[in-house]
Amino acid sequence: MKAITISLHKDRNVTLTALLQETGGEYGELKTRPAIIVLPGGGYSMCSDREADPAALAYAKAGFQAFILRYTVSKEDKEHLWPYPIQDYEDAYEVIRSNAQEWAVDMERIAVCGFSAGGHLAACAATLAANRPSAAILGYPAILPPVVDVCAKRLPYPCEHVDEKTSPCFIFAARDDNVVNVKSSTAFADALEAKGVNYEMHVYSYGGHGFSTGEACLNTAPLSQRVQNWVSDSVGFLSEVWGSFTASGFTKPRIGRTVNGDHDAYLSVRCTVGHLERQTSGARAAIADELAAVDAVLAAQGYTGEAADYLKNMFTLQTLLAMAGTPVNRILALDNALAAFKNEE
Amino acid sequence: MKAITISLHKDRNVTLTALLQETGGEYGELKTRPAIIVLPGGGYSMCSDREADPAALAYAKAGFQAFILRYTVSKEDKEHLWPYPIQDYEDAYEVIRSNAQEWAVDMERIAVCGFSAGGHLAACAATLAANRPSAAILGYPAILPPVVDVCAKRLPYPCEHVDEKTSPCFIFAARDDNVVNVKSSTAFADALEAKGVNYEMHVYSYGGHGFSTGEACLNTAPLSQRVQNWVSDSVGFLSEVWGSFTASGFTKPRIGRTVNGDHDAYLSVRCTVGHLERQTSGARAAIADELAAVDAVLAAQGYTGEAADYLKNMFTLQTLLAMAGTPVNRILALDNALAAFKNEE
Amino acid sequence: MKAITISLHKDRNVTLTALLQETGGEYGELKTRPAIIVLPGGGYSMCSDREADPAALAYAKAGFQAFILRYTVSKEDKEHLWPYPIQDYEDAYEVIRSNAQEWAVDMERIAVCGFSAGGHLAACAATLAANRPSAAILGYPAILPPVVDVCAKRLPYPCEHVDEKTSPCFIFAARDDNVVNVKSSTAFADALEAKGVNYEMHVYSYGGHGFSTGEACLNTAPLSQRVQNWVSDSVGFLSEVWGSFTASGFTKPRIGRTVNGDHDAYLSVRCTVGHLERQTSGARAAIADELAAVDAVLAAQGYTGEAADYLKNMFTLQTLLAMAGTPVNRILALDNALAAFKNEE
Amino acid sequence: MKAITISLHKDRNVTLTALLQETGGEYGELKTRPAIIVLPGGGYSMCSDREADPAALAYAKAGFQAFILRYTVSKEDKEHLWPYPIQDYEDAYEVIRSNAQEWAVDMERIAVCGFSAGGHLAACAATLAANRPSAAILGYPAILPPVVDVCAKRLPYPCEHVDEKTSPCFIFAARDDNVVNVKSSTAFADALEAKGVNYEMHVYSYGGHGFSTGEACLNTAPLSQRVQNWVSDSVGFLSEVWGSFTASGFTKPRIGRTVNGDHDAYLSVRCTVGHLERQTSGARAAIADELAAVDAVLAAQGYTGEAADYLKNMFTLQTLLAMAGTPVNRILALDNALAAFKNEE
Repeated sequence: MKAITISLHKDRNVTLTALLQETGGEYGELKTRPAIIVLPGGGYSMCSDREADPAALAYAKAGFQAFILRYTVSKEDKEHLWPYPIQDYEDAYEVIRSNAQEWAVDMERIAVCGFSAGGHLAACAATLAANRPSAAILGYPAILPPVVDVCAKRLPYPCEHVDEKTSPCFIFAARDDNVVNVKSSTAFADALEAKGVNYEMHVYSYGGHGFSTGEACLNTAPLSQRVQNWVSDSVGFLSEVWGSFTASGFTKPRIGRTVNGDHDAYLSVRCTVGHLERQTSGARAAIADELAAVDAVLAAQGYTGEAADYLKNMFTLQTLLAMAGTPVNRILALDNALAAFKNEE
Repeated sequence: MKAITISLHKDRNVTLTALLQETGGEYGELKTRPAIIVLPGGGYSMCSDREADPAALAYAKAGFQAFILRYTVSKEDKEHLWPYPIQDYEDAYEVIRSNAQEWAVDMERIAVCGFSAGGHLAACAATLAANRPSAAILGYPAILPPVVDVCAKRLPYPCEHVDEKTSPCFIFAARDDNVVNVKSSTAFADALEAKGVNYEMHVYSYGGHGFSTGEACLNTAPLSQRVQNWVSDSVGFLSEVWGSFTASGFTKPRIGRTVNGDHDAYLSVRCTVGHLERQTSGARAAIADELAAVDAVLAAQGYTGEAADYLKNMFTLQTLLAMAGTPVNRILALDNALAAFKNEE
Repeated sequence: MKAITISLHKDRNVTLTALLQETGGEYGELKTRPAIIVLPGGGYSMCSDREADPAALAYAKAGFQAFILRYTVSKEDKEHLWPYPIQDYEDAYEVIRSNAQEWAVDMERIAVCGFSAGGHLAACAATLAANRPSAAILGYPAILPPVVDVCAKRLPYPCEHVDEKTSPCFIFAARDDNVVNVKSSTAFADALEAKGVNYEMHVYSYGGHGFSTGEACLNTAPLSQRVQNWVSDSVGFLSEVWGSFTASGFTKPRIGRTVNGDHDAYLSVRCTVGHLERQTSGARAAIADELAAVDAVLAAQGYTGEAADYLKNMFTLQTLLAMAGTPVNRILALDNALAAFKNEE
Repeated sequence: MKAITISLHKDRNVTLTALLQETGGEYGELKTRPAIIVLPGGGYSMCSDREADPAALAYAKAGFQAFILRYTVSKEDKEHLWPYPIQDYEDAYEVIRSNAQEWAVDMERIAVCGFSAGGHLAACAATLAANRPSAAILGYPAILPPVVDVCAKRLPYPCEHVDEKTSPCFIFAARDDNVVNVKSSTAFADALEAKGVNYEMHVYSYGGHGFSTGEACLNTAPLSQRVQNWVSDSVGFLSEVWGSFTASGFTKPRIGRTVNGDHDAYLSVRCTVGHLERQTSGARAAIADELAAVDAVLAAQGYTGEAADYLKNMFTLQTLLAMAGTPVNRILALDNALAAFKNEE
């Protein structure tokens, strides 16, 4: 184990601290480790220590290479702050990439974990960055105006930038947050939903703002006992996105980036039937028999009219064909056929 | 322990099943128990067994008197279903009240726990019923159109009915629910937030629809390991709303119905400063000195202009006066003074 | 769900209460359920309510058919009590067997769970009964004199009866138990170890005697927060002994009755190498080549003399041959060959 | 956060690695932190990396200053190894003491955490060292012959050295450990019990030897899901011994070093009544009235003869007098009176 700190931009006081663990040797086949980049909060006026080391250590305990990025902040000059912080993130990512071999970092498995204003930055990394993290952990993030505008001028509103490459997100906050209203969290969740992006969210009954890992030694204000759960729950979420981190490598991921194919570039059997029916291209014709089979299976179960329409908007072609008893081979063939059509979203 | 089933409306097949535990005797000072009314799902076409006993047993294990209400459902007649289900709920509540002594039920501590369509009914109980439960557990609830309309005609949309008496809610769902879109959950949370009502919410990464308690023996579809956590987490939430359930009675509650006083009938120091400043009555004058003190303490910490306005909209008078060093006696006196003024919401 | 109580011996006030859950129907392939027989404590003078329903409900929540046996007790006549309690257990088991189909009980998966004197009875069931449970959960059990003798005269000392058919056990107690000294638990664990029987044991820092499930509503005396963990941990243990209880049946068990083959009736590759070397039959000759290979592989890793002897007493032939690179086919053949030899224990 | 490594004995390759977290500043009243000294295993032939960083990080995550002591080991010279390792421990402790202010270590709250041979060393620290840790975490420790003798010559057997100053211990192991038999753990627990020392112990169903923190990324062999629980459980145990680690200091401890006063230097009301009755000094006379009151209260509850004797050997005078309704003042006066008498153990 070693802890090093690299200066990224001396003039802006930007540093990257790395807490690095060994690989190989007694660790056997464990040749690289997943990584977390912690983005502390502080209203873009400071980078809070309370949200730096404790978070990094939580992921280090889970076997991650843990990085803390102290990005550009300013108490005085709120006008010219942005886009320095997101550039700092990109720079940090590139530094990690350059040192990936020496630092034994698995570049396919880098997540960000940001708190408050750092949660805003993490959401920007997930929606706007050139280097998208493979997942983002957002702790009581500042997402909506007016809190975003209070932090600094001309900050992006992350909800507006959710796109087809946005990272799966794990969001947590406390209901009684009186610095960043909890609607920042639910609004971002809804923005992810609108684009089909996977997420997990925990809003705890009480805990206020800035509870960090929720450890008692970090908190003077009262907080629900459940608040601490986000730490291990977020590790569990990452193990679903990445596969489980075992001594002999990662198992198969449990969840992908999106919940279905409705927002992908090309069509597939992962699209909902309703979505496929609304396509104006030749896609409908290519699956005409199957659409009829779907209607038949729904009708057989008593779903017609509105109810059938509803279910076709919810279930994927894959799911409904499986219910109709369509052979797997045929479903795969359909998937190939659909892949020829651009998605008209 | 005994399990009894009472017919509430024979013609509509409405039953109340009670799983009752002893009190007194070896249980000493434990003379009554809190209660849960389980409302199974099934699209108002059926009451699912999978969401009946398993949920009731989960709360019975925590020491609750557990009730299962099999309310009016219909597969055929979706036109005339409502308002029978909510009437069934009211009837069940009254039956419990009539038998409270014999059944050793603490009438101050009755929660509902509904799933899917039963979650819709639980949300209606929390927002519309004459007998509001002291808390509502909503599992992947049907809240928004079109799913509500698919369940039955003329069902209320619970978001529209959140009011100053709405019960604190514990909401859970899976992100990949393809029967009831997860936005039903986030929308209801937002409606609660808009009225200041306390809630807790957990959206798990995956688990689909209808996972009940998440026990492996109940689920064939894949679900995240974290899904099961809602059971003990909801018991924890209830222990915050009610106080902890100990052998010598309940401890002090940790959370109230609302997050601050901005939506109460009368003003108080629990109102945010911004809310108090917007009152047109004499309330402002009554606390003029304190409003000045608040401005001073914010300015001393570097918050002026927009930032100060922002914080005054977030922090209660109580909190900011505490930061200003105002004596507790003075804060109590102010609270008394403010209580004379109706809240202009 | 239904709760019924059957009188087993009216004259001795022996009853069997069953909390039964449905199978089939919406539960699909779930046609039978595992079962627990709860044996409350009370010093063989009473059957404590506090250790009856709460324990039964804990396992019912996990999907089990839950039984409570109120066995023969007496405050006055301690001379003639035994062996009524163990006969009551046998009778209860037979009643369950007779009703297994109607009650949907998986007869391969019946565990006992006893507390204090009921833990003594559960240990007797695991070591002495004609109907051995497939696992035993022992809560702060009375195992050693003098506490056993205080409970009643001529009770068996369970440590003396651990044999080759003894059930795997899950034991828990509190370090500061001032009614049954914690050595009752460790002594029974050691007796299981001496016969190679699998077990799990949790001794919590404090909690005294009689904490039942550890729920706050059941306990006036102080107890460690960890005490409650035994409930879900014991369900986890049972899922290792039985396989996980899923909607489509049980998965493969993770642990067997014994830790290795040294106490089985016949030899196998699951025996430790030291044990095989001490056999006087022809078994040694049958595996002479392999014993040499084992010595070679240990020497190659630097283990000779005492160290090698030590490891041969700890590792099974199977394990050491795997380390030596012996093909699986050959190991299976050896297992067949060894099965011809009686174990000289 | 910084990680530093200090060479303690260059010739023997002894190093102390410190992972240090900040105090003060944003951490407010948190001016010192509790500390852990990790003692990796490796049969006194090596210090395993797998049991070094992962354990240190687990406690660092909980807010501790975390130290790893790589003590003297030798693969070749097993004759002259001891007592270097325990001297290394004493040296490490002194180095921490010398730097306590700079490193912000709370010298009242230093625990050791050792694995396997390191568990032997931790048990020696708890029983033999001049600098006793305030608690010891023992992971699958080598305690009994022959495994202790296999590790090195002339190592102490820790069971023989448990005394009135021995630290409270948290012990964990797996039932199927085939390197260090699980009896090493239960035997040490029994030795602690014999001297009244508090402990907690978890023996998991399976996990073999050397599972470290139980993280999947560290383990190729199968292990029970519960194995990982020891990490947070041990932090919970320490919070009972030390009081909870909060942002404003430590709360009151929940457990002391011993379970009662029977092994203290002087008598007290924390002694069991049986122990007090066996004293030959004047102590009995000083509490003659109270001993009679105790007999009366037991008789009133139906306990006489053997049963009463049994309970008097289990319950403290304090407990039985409380049951007899003796006023607190009188109990305190008795405690003062008893303090004049040496304990005849």
